[in-house]
Amino acid sequence: MPVNRRVVLAARPVGVPVPSDFRLEEAPVPEPADGECLVQVSYLSVDPYMRGRISGRKSYAAPVEIGQTIVGNAVGRVIASRSDSFEVGGYVHGNLGWQEYAAASDDGLRAVDPSVAPLSAWIGVLGMPGLTAYYGLLRVAGVNSGETVCVSGAAGAVGSAVGQIARIKGCRVVGIAGGERKCAWVTDELGFDAAIDYKGENVTDALRAACPDGIDVYFDNVGGPITDAVFQHLNVWSRVAICGQISQYNAVDASVGPRLLWNFIPKRIRAQGFLVFDFREHDAEALAQMASWIRGGQLKYGETVAEGIENAASAFIGMLGGANMGKQVVKLSDA
Amino acid sequence: MPVNRRVVLAARPVGVPVPSDFRLEEAPVPEPADGECLVQVSYLSVDPYMRGRISGRKSYAAPVEIGQTIVGNAVGRVIASRSDSFEVGGYVHGNLGWQEYAAASDDGLRAVDPSVAPLSAWIGVLGMPGLTAYYGLLRVAGVNSGETVCVSGAAGAVGSAVGQIARIKGCRVVGIAGGERKCAWVTDELGFDAAIDYKGENVTDALRAACPDGIDVYFDNVGGPITDAVFQHLNVWSRVAICGQISQYNAVDASVGPRLLWNFIPKRIRAQGFLVFDFREHDAEALAQMASWIRGGQLKYGETVAEGIENAASAFIGMLGGANMGKQVVKLSDA
Repeated sequence: MPVNRRVVLAARPVGVPVPSDFRLEEAPVPEPADGECLVQVSYLSVDPYMRGRISGRKSYAAPVEIGQTIVGNAVGRVIASRSDSFEVGGYVHGNLGWQEYAAASDDGLRAVDPSVAPLSAWIGVLGMPGLTAYYGLLRVAGVNSGETVCVSGAAGAVGSAVGQIARIKGCRVVGIAGGERKCAWVTDELGFDAAIDYKGENVTDALRAACPDGIDVYFDNVGGPITDAVFQHLNVWSRVAICGQISQYNAVDASVGPRLLWNFIPKRIRAQGFLVFDFREHDAEALAQMASWIRGGQLKYGETVAEGIENAASAFIGMLGGANMGKQVVKLSDA
Repeated sequence: MPVNRRVVLAARPVGVPVPSDFRLEEAPVPEPADGECLVQVSYLSVDPYMRGRISGRKSYAAPVEIGQTIVGNAVGRVIASRSDSFEVGGYVHGNLGWQEYAAASDDGLRAVDPSVAPLSAWIGVLGMPGLTAYYGLLRVAGVNSGETVCVSGAAGAVGSAVGQIARIKGCRVVGIAGGERKCAWVTDELGFDAAIDYKGENVTDALRAACPDGIDVYFDNVGGPITDAVFQHLNVWSRVAICGQISQYNAVDASVGPRLLWNFIPKRIRAQGFLVFDFREHDAEALAQMASWIRGGQLKYGETVAEGIENAASAFIGMLGGANMGKQVVKLSDA
């Protein structure tokens, strides 16, 4: 009888998560109940938002409790079904958690078509990160051809899609990322107009050079000092889509920084926070558009792949520190 | 021959403006050129935004230079006219500056009707501050009946109008002001549901008590620690209209504070800065509505009146420190 290996929360992280905050457990593979499917996971997603979910802070979703399986999107194959919606052998996507097998209610699953894009893409550019980029740029910020778009976390799963979608819409795109390798990737491979290495350059000075006409749209994945620098270059009537603040997620004490709100008045800045599932009703349309861009070669994606559930925690910790280029996934099986 | 007394900028203020930053000068009463009116000023307005205009910082309008007359709205009587639009004896409003007589081009003047409201109201509740309240609340933030609206600077010219308009729209209104006298005024005279004395209460705790259902709309006139406290109580889908940041205007060094942007994401906060003249095309409609509310007794206003151009600077300095209750005006003549 096969064993289900899963990762549970062992301790609430204080500051940067460490391996001992997580524990690998073994359990019997679950039996699907009526209306459920048993899914063998192929790829597991690790994402910045999970840092909030294991912190115990009250937020838009209930926190993961000590001893519970860590939450996370995954894609895999249906190996048993007591659902009328999914047949054995089909591929599905859902919030299956950090485990090798999951029994999941069919109303939380979505069929994925591996002929459109490889399985792992359905938790990346065609999953939550890609939809986040699409909605945040097009529905939250809004872009017009000819505008300058700046995106932080530019080499991440969300940021790399943001910049390419902005290019498709006729914008000048400037990405901010950590390290020369990431910067070269977003300009040379993804077609960004410019990239700023925040680890090697003064961001304020580099933005002045890269954005001679200022910044009309800022897609913020990181917060902190990088965002402080971007605010100095925002134009009148600029928009800020606040997607993530990864620089702050490991902060133990409340972080302080320059007060940004006074900028809003003369520049009439509009800043809007958002969550991807606010736009769920548009997912089919958005995914069709994204798939079309992928087929047309206009939208590329990168992946950093860890292997095995035993490496999920280290992949997550590394991703929080910027070790990944493109989407960080964990491959659990060839299913 | 009458003399025109005016106040010019003597020195750029560093921190809190002091009387020696201003200088009273005498000059001949100007002659109106073709298309101009000569206006004898009745009431001069002093407003927070002027602090920015004398700072020398580049912003949405050119700064006042050393030796130039300080800018400011005023209302008065036409005593000579070379304009087809205005006759001698009529009352007008415009940016006439800190002086007793102004020759002004007719395209910058607007006729005012003293039968609708006293002259001074046309630089207050029926002038820039009142329109700022109206647009900021109704067009920038947007309010729905039953929502909780919080306004800082609640006893000022803008804040006092914001709270009453929100009440008219069916909202619960909580004002934040400095001192028991101001708090009593906005609740007992203006009908706010609650008021918080930031000088005498812990704002965070007081907001928790006064806003048991959280805050849906925050109209920010002050920024700084008061705004930091309000952000802790904002609801999901809340809106922030950023009108002023008076707590920061005298800052010599860039002020730091807790980073607020992370709040935006789970709460989907929308913050928007604005300037009153962005909505100029709606002024006639807005003023008609405001005048109707005043006639109906639903919209009240208070004034703090200084007398004489020689007291304009002290009135301005006092207003920046919160000495006024309601609109701070300077009466220059009975014209």
